Amino acid sequence: MSKPLLAGIEAGGTKFVCAVGYSPVEILRETRFPTTTPEETMMRAYEFFSGCEKDLGPIASLGIGSFGPVDLDLSSDTFGNITSTPKILWADTDIVGFFTNRMNVPVGFDTDTNAAALGEGLYGAGRGCDTFLYLTIGTGIGGGVVVDNKALHGLVHPEVGHIRVAPRRDDPFPGTCPFHGSCLEGMAAGPAIEARWGRPGIELPEDHPAWDLEAWYLAQGLASMVLMLSPQRIIMGGGVMHQPQIFPAIRRYLKEFLNGYVDRPEITEEQEEYIVFPERENRAGITGALLLAEDAASVQ
Amino acid sequence: MSKPLLAGIEAGGTKFVCAVGYSPVEILRETRFPTTTPEETMMRAYEFFSGCEKDLGPIASLGIGSFGPVDLDLSSDTFGNITSTPKILWADTDIVGFFTNRMNVPVGFDTDTNAAALGEGLYGAGRGCDTFLYLTIGTGIGGGVVVDNKALHGLVHPEVGHIRVAPRRDDPFPGTCPFHGSCLEGMAAGPAIEARWGRPGIELPEDHPAWDLEAWYLAQGLASMVLMLSPQRIIMGGGVMHQPQIFPAIRRYLKEFLNGYVDRPEITEEQEEYIVFPERENRAGITGALLLAEDAASVQ
Ligand SMILES: Nc1ncnc2c1ncn2[C@@H]1O[C@H](COP(=O)(O)OP(=O)(O)O)[C@@H](O)[C@H]1O
Ligand SMILES: Nc1ncnc2c1ncn2[C@@H]1O[C@H](COP(=O)(O)OP(=O)(O)O)[C@@H](O)[C@H]1O
Ligand SMILES: [Zn+2]
Ligand SMILES: [Zn+2]
Repeated sequence: MSKPLLAGIEAGGTKFVCAVGYSPVEILRETRFPTTTPEETMMRAYEFFSGCEKDLGPIASLGIGSFGPVDLDLSSDTFGNITSTPKILWADTDIVGFFTNRMNVPVGFDTDTNAAALGEGLYGAGRGCDTFLYLTIGTGIGGGVVVDNKALHGLVHPEVGHIRVAPRRDDPFPGTCPFHGSCLEGMAAGPAIEARWGRPGIELPEDHPAWDLEAWYLAQGLASMVLMLSPQRIIMGGGVMHQPQIFPAIRRYLKEFLNGYVDRPEITEEQEEYIVFPERENRAGITGALLLAEDAASVQ
Repeated sequence: MSKPLLAGIEAGGTKFVCAVGYSPVEILRETRFPTTTPEETMMRAYEFFSGCEKDLGPIASLGIGSFGPVDLDLSSDTFGNITSTPKILWADTDIVGFFTNRMNVPVGFDTDTNAAALGEGLYGAGRGCDTFLYLTIGTGIGGGVVVDNKALHGLVHPEVGHIRVAPRRDDPFPGTCPFHGSCLEGMAAGPAIEARWGRPGIELPEDHPAWDLEAWYLAQGLASMVLMLSPQRIIMGGGVMHQPQIFPAIRRYLKEFLNGYVDRPEITEEQEEYIVFPERENRAGITGALLLAEDAASVQ
């Protein structure tokens, strides 16, 4: 019996990436195109997969990592939908239904960040861990929590970027989050840096005080995440993390915040292995989508 | 074939509870005695189980929920030990080894709070949930995180009581935690209430401002826990939660802190089902220990 052919979609708000392969990291064919209307965009993905089937044989299962919010509740009538998204054309789009109806294969579905967390974790910087955290610090602060090699869902799914942080004494900035003001995202995502200092992060010199403050807030968030989730590793990507000088400061502040309470060498000594930059970066999402396909096939 | 006989130990810092039964909630025989020296205490537990075996037949497996810190890392040389506990006589006690050597059955092992979380969750107030949070607000703030019906471990295990909270504007109290000062435990456990108001909580009237402030801190902690773990339910027990008036205030403040960000009826409408008092309370720990025994038997 030949290995089943997996299909994956990284459904982003600005572009779709579609791929097929015999494993999440053996991609045979891939395409990417801009996200337009739901009908047009999904049809284009479907046609890509039909073409692949003609040349490579039948697809066994599909995995989708999607922008959201999405409904992940298997018992819900709207499971598999993109729900109340600000991308208005896509509100209430049954993305799973679209592909299930046409392709007639099992479909695995999760958020884009959960897919990226799985992809990066199991095939990139998280190798060897089964319980870890994947964060992106960019336009927002998002993340995926993986426990025992599976993305944590629970009631909905974690939104680690919105935990409250205590402001640093020397920082009067009120935060940019429309929901919480000074949550982690409100104080430390890219737009917060830009609003606080009047220039986007990429224009600030490496030794600008912005970076020490940034590391302080991120480390405060990480300390709470370590205490609540006890991850074996924390992978931090996204635009803002392209400032390599903030990694050492984050590690130092994390140790300070925990203050010996979590007495493990990963935190007190070997921090370079504990807080890491992604290895797969732009490949994480599609790798994760193919992992979701693999899971969907094995559940069937 | 008859059902296997399970044995459980709730190993507390002040007392041990030992029980045997054919399921975690069908206890046939139980004993409790004070925690003295390791040798004497563990021997007493062992003799109890030997007596049960004489009357009821062979024990199939044992579960231990222990005070700590404990080493849960299966790959560690000191797995199954109580490690650097302030209860000095018990430091570096190989509690799992003691029983494995004598009873020659599979032994399941976890922290006392994780055992209680499993017991309360699966057989008490958490029934129907697979991912939930169990908290005790007493001398400290401890808890167990259960994901997919299993206690979350990761690097070590969560210590949710020590996440940082932002102080309320009208509260100058510096916090009691020796590690973090104003972490959640430092601001809201029983001793913090007593230190802030000069009297233990139990002596403060029901309408004392202490309770509103208490609810505010606990809700702030819960908001972060909801965002990080996405629990399907939160069970809150321990001495301090015997103030029933604080439940409604916690629910209201939780909604305020999240401010619509997690738009689920559990949080915005049906909060009475979301934040609940334990059902089993003092039975949770031993129930959980028997659950650990059940798991150990099925893994074997
Ligand atoms: N090299 C950089 N240094 C600091 N900030 C950056 C850098 N590159 C991008 N950013 C910031 O990161 C944000 C964009 O994040 P990014 O991860 O690239 O995209 P998105 O989060 O939208 O997917 C912007 O706020 C931008 O200012
Ligand atoms: N009814 C009550 N109301 C308020 N606080 C209480 C009450 N009962 C106990 N406490 C406080 O809870 C703490 C003891 O917690 P408890 O859960 O009983 O024990 P432990 O945490 O040591 O296992 C003490 O600080 C005590 O002041
Ligand atoms: Zn926010
Ligand atoms: Zn603390």
